[in-house]
Amino acid sequence: MAERVAGPEIEKLIQLLARLPGLGPRSARRAALHLIRKREELLAPLSDAMRVARERIVTCTACGNIDTADPCTICRDPRRDPSVVVVVETVADLWALERAGVVRGHYHVLGGTLSPLDGIGPDDLNLSGFAERIVAESVKEVILAVNATVDGQTTAHYVTDLVSHLDLLVTRLAHGVPVGGELDYLDEGTLAAALRARTAF
Amino acid sequence: MAERVAGPEIEKLIQLLARLPGLGPRSARRAALHLIRKREELLAPLSDAMRVARERIVTCTACGNIDTADPCTICRDPRRDPSVVVVVETVADLWALERAGVVRGHYHVLGGTLSPLDGIGPDDLNLSGFAERIVAESVKEVILAVNATVDGQTTAHYVTDLVSHLDLLVTRLAHGVPVGGELDYLDEGTLAAALRARTAF
Repeated sequence: MAERVAGPEIEKLIQLLARLPGLGPRSARRAALHLIRKREELLAPLSDAMRVARERIVTCTACGNIDTADPCTICRDPRRDPSVVVVVETVADLWALERAGVVRGHYHVLGGTLSPLDGIGPDDLNLSGFAERIVAESVKEVILAVNATVDGQTTAHYVTDLVSHLDLLVTRLAHGVPVGGELDYLDEGTLAAALRARTAF
Repeated sequence: MAERVAGPEIEKLIQLLARLPGLGPRSARRAALHLIRKREELLAPLSDAMRVARERIVTCTACGNIDTADPCTICRDPRRDPSVVVVVETVADLWALERAGVVRGHYHVLGGTLSPLDGIGPDDLNLSGFAERIVAESVKEVILAVNATVDGQTTAHYVTDLVSHLDLLVTRLAHGVPVGGELDYLDEGTLAAALRARTAF
């Protein structure tokens, strides 16, 4: 409706902003006004950053990460151990692990999970050439860092099968009580897993 | 922290997205990934829309609205009655009234409210030349559509004083029960105002 008021350009900006996750129609209007008000401090640099992203960001052909270089910064990092490959569902998960700073190996980003109900099969994931990569890079351990969901676990089993003929250690993240978590708020599955995997104190 | 992972370009995009109202650091990361994934459907058009907004959107010198034309679409609309001017705090308020489709006059966008505590005085608002505009355009009614806040009411009084020497009707929006509102959830001030302003049924 702002179309009649301010011309189609602003309306278009609002409609596109509303398609960002986390922004609805109302917050998209607020965001558009904020951008227009902060033209030099925010609109201009954000517009530039988007142009750069659009022109320069590529998917790493080795691991599926996104970066402005291919192979990506992680795959090219000589301090990392290429014999360990951490399999994640999405780049967001890769970023989460990097923020934690706990992975010194390489990654393999699947780009999703197997989901028969949604019609997502192996061909829709970054899996072609996965076994070949493991062989070519002499990988010794594949760590499955997929989500603890049904689709995530299905995917974990599928990936394991792909490399089961290789001499390779396949591990997965531990289940347990989140650090800082309160037992009272955890589901029975997590509590059962945490009890089974209890360690000496 | 994603900086070490994916180069500074993506990190920059995330930081700028996080400055939009309604997006925090986490949702800005999600938005950045969404944009990069939907490069052609979303990132490219949004980048273009921002460039257009940056280059073409101007503030209407007549009323303070934003548009790609000056005077704006509303000020140029021959079907509108220029003898009625609705004073609003922000362009967002103007949009809200336009969505309701209830204003057939022109607007005057103040760009904020007087707020002595925040150091916002009359010179910070779009008020210079307001009285002259009223005279030049032979305005017969000024409708104060400012928020029902202390600062909004202070501003309403100030604007009224500016034009008190002119032969002019100054009105303000009615207070009362919102349509669809439940009395139980309304504050005493609103209920008292609604009772005072009761109308024949």
